[in-house]
Amino acid sequence: MTDKTANQMWGGRFASGPDAIMEAINASISFDQRLAAQDIAGSRAHAAMLSAQGIITDKDAETIREGLLTVLSEIEGGSFQFSTALEDIHMNVEARLKEVIGEPAGRLHTGRSRNDQVATDFRLWVRDQADAAIAGLEALMRALLGQAEAGADWVMPGFTHLQTAQPVTWGHHMMAYVEMFARDKSRFEDARRRMNESPLGAAALAGTSFPIDRHATAEALGFDRPMANSLDAVSDRDFALEFLGAASICAMHLSRMAEELVIWSSAQFRFVVLSDRFSTGSSIMPQKKNPDAAELIRAKIGRIFGANVALMMVMKGLPLAYSKDMQEDKEQVFDAADNLMLALAAMTGMVGDMKANVPGLEGAAGAGFSTATDLADWLVRVLGMPFRDAHHVTGALVALAEGKGCDLPELSLSDMQGVEPRITEEVFGVLGVHNSVASRMSYGGTAPERVRQQVAAWTEKLG
Amino acid sequence: MTDKTANQMWGGRFASGPDAIMEAINASISFDQRLAAQDIAGSRAHAAMLSAQGIITDKDAETIREGLLTVLSEIEGGSFQFSTALEDIHMNVEARLKEVIGEPAGRLHTGRSRNDQVATDFRLWVRDQADAAIAGLEALMRALLGQAEAGADWVMPGFTHLQTAQPVTWGHHMMAYVEMFARDKSRFEDARRRMNESPLGAAALAGTSFPIDRHATAEALGFDRPMANSLDAVSDRDFALEFLGAASICAMHLSRMAEELVIWSSAQFRFVVLSDRFSTGSSIMPQKKNPDAAELIRAKIGRIFGANVALMMVMKGLPLAYSKDMQEDKEQVFDAADNLMLALAAMTGMVGDMKANVPGLEGAAGAGFSTATDLADWLVRVLGMPFRDAHHVTGALVALAEGKGCDLPELSLSDMQGVEPRITEEVFGVLGVHNSVASRMSYGGTAPERVRQQVAAWTEKLG
Amino acid sequence: MTDKTANQMWGGRFASGPDAIMEAINASISFDQRLAAQDIAGSRAHAAMLSAQGIITDKDAETIREGLLTVLSEIEGGSFQFSTALEDIHMNVEARLKEVIGEPAGRLHTGRSRNDQVATDFRLWVRDQADAAIAGLEALMRALLGQAEAGADWVMPGFTHLQTAQPVTWGHHMMAYVEMFARDKSRFEDARRRMNESPLGAAALAGTSFPIDRHATAEALGFDRPMANSLDAVSDRDFALEFLGAASICAMHLSRMAEELVIWSSAQFRFVVLSDRFSTGSSIMPQKKNPDAAELIRAKIGRIFGANVALMMVMKGLPLAYSKDMQEDKEQVFDAADNLMLALAAMTGMVGDMKANVPGLEGAAGAGFSTATDLADWLVRVLGMPFRDAHHVTGALVALAEGKGCDLPELSLSDMQGVEPRITEEVFGVLGVHNSVASRMSYGGTAPERVRQQVAAWTEKLG
Amino acid sequence: MTDKTANQMWGGRFASGPDAIMEAINASISFDQRLAAQDIAGSRAHAAMLSAQGIITDKDAETIREGLLTVLSEIEGGSFQFSTALEDIHMNVEARLKEVIGEPAGRLHTGRSRNDQVATDFRLWVRDQADAAIAGLEALMRALLGQAEAGADWVMPGFTHLQTAQPVTWGHHMMAYVEMFARDKSRFEDARRRMNESPLGAAALAGTSFPIDRHATAEALGFDRPMANSLDAVSDRDFALEFLGAASICAMHLSRMAEELVIWSSAQFRFVVLSDRFSTGSSIMPQKKNPDAAELIRAKIGRIFGANVALMMVMKGLPLAYSKDMQEDKEQVFDAADNLMLALAAMTGMVGDMKANVPGLEGAAGAGFSTATDLADWLVRVLGMPFRDAHHVTGALVALAEGKGCDLPELSLSDMQGVEPRITEEVFGVLGVHNSVASRMSYGGTAPERVRQQVAAWTEKLG
Repeated sequence: MTDKTANQMWGGRFASGPDAIMEAINASISFDQRLAAQDIAGSRAHAAMLSAQGIITDKDAETIREGLLTVLSEIEGGSFQFSTALEDIHMNVEARLKEVIGEPAGRLHTGRSRNDQVATDFRLWVRDQADAAIAGLEALMRALLGQAEAGADWVMPGFTHLQTAQPVTWGHHMMAYVEMFARDKSRFEDARRRMNESPLGAAALAGTSFPIDRHATAEALGFDRPMANSLDAVSDRDFALEFLGAASICAMHLSRMAEELVIWSSAQFRFVVLSDRFSTGSSIMPQKKNPDAAELIRAKIGRIFGANVALMMVMKGLPLAYSKDMQEDKEQVFDAADNLMLALAAMTGMVGDMKANVPGLEGAAGAGFSTATDLADWLVRVLGMPFRDAHHVTGALVALAEGKGCDLPELSLSDMQGVEPRITEEVFGVLGVHNSVASRMSYGGTAPERVRQQVAAWTEKLG
Repeated sequence: MTDKTANQMWGGRFASGPDAIMEAINASISFDQRLAAQDIAGSRAHAAMLSAQGIITDKDAETIREGLLTVLSEIEGGSFQFSTALEDIHMNVEARLKEVIGEPAGRLHTGRSRNDQVATDFRLWVRDQADAAIAGLEALMRALLGQAEAGADWVMPGFTHLQTAQPVTWGHHMMAYVEMFARDKSRFEDARRRMNESPLGAAALAGTSFPIDRHATAEALGFDRPMANSLDAVSDRDFALEFLGAASICAMHLSRMAEELVIWSSAQFRFVVLSDRFSTGSSIMPQKKNPDAAELIRAKIGRIFGANVALMMVMKGLPLAYSKDMQEDKEQVFDAADNLMLALAAMTGMVGDMKANVPGLEGAAGAGFSTATDLADWLVRVLGMPFRDAHHVTGALVALAEGKGCDLPELSLSDMQGVEPRITEEVFGVLGVHNSVASRMSYGGTAPERVRQQVAAWTEKLG
Repeated sequence: MTDKTANQMWGGRFASGPDAIMEAINASISFDQRLAAQDIAGSRAHAAMLSAQGIITDKDAETIREGLLTVLSEIEGGSFQFSTALEDIHMNVEARLKEVIGEPAGRLHTGRSRNDQVATDFRLWVRDQADAAIAGLEALMRALLGQAEAGADWVMPGFTHLQTAQPVTWGHHMMAYVEMFARDKSRFEDARRRMNESPLGAAALAGTSFPIDRHATAEALGFDRPMANSLDAVSDRDFALEFLGAASICAMHLSRMAEELVIWSSAQFRFVVLSDRFSTGSSIMPQKKNPDAAELIRAKIGRIFGANVALMMVMKGLPLAYSKDMQEDKEQVFDAADNLMLALAAMTGMVGDMKANVPGLEGAAGAGFSTATDLADWLVRVLGMPFRDAHHVTGALVALAEGKGCDLPELSLSDMQGVEPRITEEVFGVLGVHNSVASRMSYGGTAPERVRQQVAAWTEKLG
Repeated sequence: MTDKTANQMWGGRFASGPDAIMEAINASISFDQRLAAQDIAGSRAHAAMLSAQGIITDKDAETIREGLLTVLSEIEGGSFQFSTALEDIHMNVEARLKEVIGEPAGRLHTGRSRNDQVATDFRLWVRDQADAAIAGLEALMRALLGQAEAGADWVMPGFTHLQTAQPVTWGHHMMAYVEMFARDKSRFEDARRRMNESPLGAAALAGTSFPIDRHATAEALGFDRPMANSLDAVSDRDFALEFLGAASICAMHLSRMAEELVIWSSAQFRFVVLSDRFSTGSSIMPQKKNPDAAELIRAKIGRIFGANVALMMVMKGLPLAYSKDMQEDKEQVFDAADNLMLALAAMTGMVGDMKANVPGLEGAAGAGFSTATDLADWLVRVLGMPFRDAHHVTGALVALAEGKGCDLPELSLSDMQGVEPRITEEVFGVLGVHNSVASRMSYGGTAPERVRQQVAAWTEKLG
């Protein structure tokens, strides 16, 4: 029966149907059934256009429309029987449509081909994912804004090389990620705009001699316009690669934040406490709180960028137009999109729930003479010292404090003047972590006032 | 002496300087000297702003400006001595500036740091490469337009699975690549726009207490605005990854066209003759003409996307802000950009020079009953047959022709009517490859008239 | 109820159980259920050892053994209810075991942990895949040997740059792939040998204070020895990466052969006819025979090497010992292994079924003065000319033949002597494609005699 | 003049030589000059064989040998003028040889081709790198053994999820890396063995009709045997991919250790102090000690695995035999090998120099009730409790200690008996971190005695 169906599909030319191996490697219905809604939407738009153009009758179009709705409800309701012998979602839907409505089903495929059909379905699916990524990023940005607003003046260490460099504010650190995720969002927006062209009507590869109206189907499916070259329309998958590229960069940003959360929730750092909802514990070690969700988010870049590599490799060196190799496009994008959405949701949940250890952050921020650069800047700004000389004086003062076992603000003025006589009482205004961050008022700087401006601006932008 | 210099740089805290291994792994001057022009441009903008803000004197600013111009001319003239002990381009320039102008050199570094400096330099460099890629793509598109215009009605096989599917036109095939490269161009434009923000003034990571004007330096360097978060400004390299992503997709498109050229110039295809300028021959086999340039272009996706992988891997899981890992960003982008520009230039040259074998293409286009779909479409369009039934009749007619050893247009009307009595003389108007392509008038279709419209539209857009 | 189960597992410390997001990102049972047989084999070996060492009673061990067999039969029979709340295969099996046998189930986990358990299960699974790959490669090599034996003296073009360079034999070309796949096989053998060490008994990471016998469990599971360091045993996944590396190189070889089959079955080449079992056709274009299986095999390198990238990225920079990131290891390896086996099987089927177009191959082999190098070599060998001079003479003779519109063997002796007087009648013995290939008797050369030796040697080796 | 040289090389068939673009994309001499020594060694072996076989005279062979030595000394001495017009190292050496010795130079190329020549050169080069990697890994293992021996009983936290799980010993942690790097070493050994076959004499692709002795040249060059199929010999680069795969896994291991060193040298962890030789400092923040070398080593996996991706992508889908694409193989392997050796050397230096903070490690090891599993194991082992019940009792005891603000060893016996009456004084023998690690005596466990056995075994193996 499989062979019979296969024969029907291939016009009786093949002595034998595909055996098990061929079926296993060739059929895509096990995964491309995820395109069912898109496939039926495309067929509805196509049928409506065919009747508007007089290519099929209005009656046939209406019969097709109703049949497609029936098929869709069967699929959504779980009663549809997918057939591997029918290979893919397009043939499965079409065969069922024929069972449901009979002869008019045969007219639906007029002026199109599986090549433009799958390109259309897949573009619609990826476009939805771009929208989902944008929404997921906005939710994450909101969660970060919440943390930033709450902690606009909580002081924490700013690291370079994972070594304390200068104090920054918690809010500033959160807002750094808002900027990154905002760029990710704009990358998805650009990708969406660029992919939002309709391949439908490109037919097998050359267009068609039927008087179809590709602008009409494009509009019906929410595309900005039909694609301008039929060969290109069925041959390229750059839109999927661009989606994967944007997803990979986003996953990179997520991996960085996840790494920070893993490090920050270690017993040695204790900068943050993750909620129980996104951690797992040990039944016998109460302090142990494994940041499982953060670790898994950190790992997701692997499969998301791995999918990018996979599809890039598939497309490398393929001559035009459609080659079967391109059937390998979907599973990669499905998996990458699923995991990106999951990682965004989990990160949003974690960011919303996490509790900063404010005293711990502040204590860490002040260690290691972290305001030494503030002192050096003061020497330059107020005493007019050249930058490198100010560093020299600062180094001597730090050595002095280190020798005394105290921090810079605890040196006396006379101690300081012993090193550099021109230092005045005013210098103490820039020492100490709160003074330090408050002074960094340059545009984009870590001063709480600046952070609140950033928060306000982004809150307004996100609406 | 190396140690002495090192000590000076590190403030005398290190008992020993870097030995050979450390120097080899740590120093970047061997490659980041390519950023010299950008580094000096950034310093000039910074110095001008410092004096405009009253942070340094106008006299110092002028001395610095002149000194920087001197250093630049030394570098451009090849007389500059780069020092590995000074590690990177920033320290090399600054140290030389001090030799040239003395004390004011020490004031240049006020309110900035190597972290924002390198981020600025690298963004400027990558921005230039985006511009170069855009220009290279435009040149390639023009070369393709030339081919498309000349061959708007040359008929060739349209392949699926490297099997002839339907006739298309040479011009249509060329225009498919114009569409692909146009999207590549728009990707570089988006990337350029997104990266065009200034990190300068973010300082080490927290901003600065000096009253700097980041908008002024941003404007002076052609940036649209300063980056809004100092931590983000020094920490992220997503702009480089986005550039590499766009370059990789472009290289994928190039690899597909290159593969076609390799196949087309085989003795078996003979679709195209590449010029001697981009081929190599055998001293004893005159027909052998190796498409070396096409093969090398086909291969370039390897190193370009390999660079994308490399940098994505470097950035994975890095906590904020600057980590030394990020020093690995430049060589990858340098190599990818160089090779992309080279591949674009070589492809432009090849496309400009190549000669289509017009009779060969046409002969191949007609083989294999390639207008069978035209016949089927006629049955649907004119006789109103359902699509699948039309295929059945067409199959029978093809079998008839195959049995007679002739092509479809060579069947007599009565032969045809023996299979389907309603067929009329009119059917011969769609058989034959020229009729076939002329009939594909749907938007984006392969009809010469459509191709000429595409060519005209793109010619106007490219200006 | 989910929360209740979760609470039981985590010892009641968590105020709330994982919500839907956490469950979705955290639970692995949807995929790691593929490890069920390995998990139960490991538990059986562990229980037997525990009783042999007197750590549990023989009675408990026997009860556990029978319980595990019951669970296994439930899983194999499809009646087992997998629970997402129980997260992974280990907890699913253990929980069911407790239901089946009660209290003794609690003793099974003595002296081990989920960390060494999953490492053991996964190693056993990957080891099985290495064996499957080896068997698959042997089958493919046998199919290639069949082709090589049949066509040891069929002449075909040897290409460089897809341009005919010299005639070779079909058998020689097939044997080139035998060599490649033999190296792939030896890579899997090496990987198998290196991974064949038992992590079981490494416990969470530090080993255990129970007097377990790791050598016994290693032996019971077919491992060569226990791993020598418990931290290493639970932390590393290099065995999976090495498997993916070997699979990727093998997929690269497959992609090359698949590309050849696609090109060879084009209408322009017609070197080979693929069987209907591994192609699909067009209902209306009888000549069109799409090499779907070959194209899909060509594409498989994408997902297989993509999996390699994914896991390499996951492992990058993970501190010891177990991190949850490592849960991402399995799906990648599962997918890569499944697709490698499928590609090997499909290629074996295609190679077994394909028919070389012997006259077509021979005709192509002779075109383009492909025996010019034979002529040059004769001039060197017999007349003692320097290599470069012989090339010069050959070039002149080829030009002469080209001018006359004939091939080299069709030149007269006097024609030849006009160019180089010392040429004798003997030269005709090396011209013509059969003479050419027969003369290439150097070790590893394309002479039919050499090919038959290669075939015989490999046939004996494969047993 | 470039054209003239080019014309000479290509036999006068090309109307024009390569212009600047073609030269830039086509010539490889800028990088393949690194193969000079290998190229000349191959030529010497070839010439010696040719004369032994009577194909050239002994006198010519001797002249060639001396000429090659002259050329080699010119290259090594830096006086050799490399010419881009001559494209590659093979033509550069041959052209210079002709200048030096005249006519006999033309006989050297008998029975070989650039295709087998470059395959031979590159294999020899990669083989040297495998040897270098093996030596580098042995040095690193020795450095680790030194640390392990010194700290066989220093106690530190064993982490899972970067959370303290159980105490381990410093020596045990170091030995985990010894195991990993030992497997890396064995991967390079396997790769070396598999690649150690000679392509020389495969000629262009088909072998040769000259009576060459490939076994002789193989032996002279240290190869185990000649490759058995000439097409395979010139077509495959799997040996380079396998080298890159082994290098990538090794770089992954290095990245994990580097990540640990970065985290361990943070102010929050302070587990280790890196020497000044492999760190950089701040001139004004004495505590800041940036682990630059560790960060750079962590990053190296990017470019090394990026090279693997690049070459895999290049090789994907290339038909046999030689294609110019394969010229892209060398730069990737050069760069990956250079950076692997550098990373190994830097890690060896860092491991040799670093100082563990022994009290800090021990303090961290004991925090968080890290010996709770020891207590649970005692309950199972001594009291015969089921594993899960023992966990319950332990949880209660930990809660008790937590409530009292003390650690487990500080609970009184009666406190303990209040929870579980069967507990005896003996339990205190397993509490405390030193007791804990000493008890983990299972094979491969963390007990100092076990660690010393591991150290002794590896010390002996490394000789």
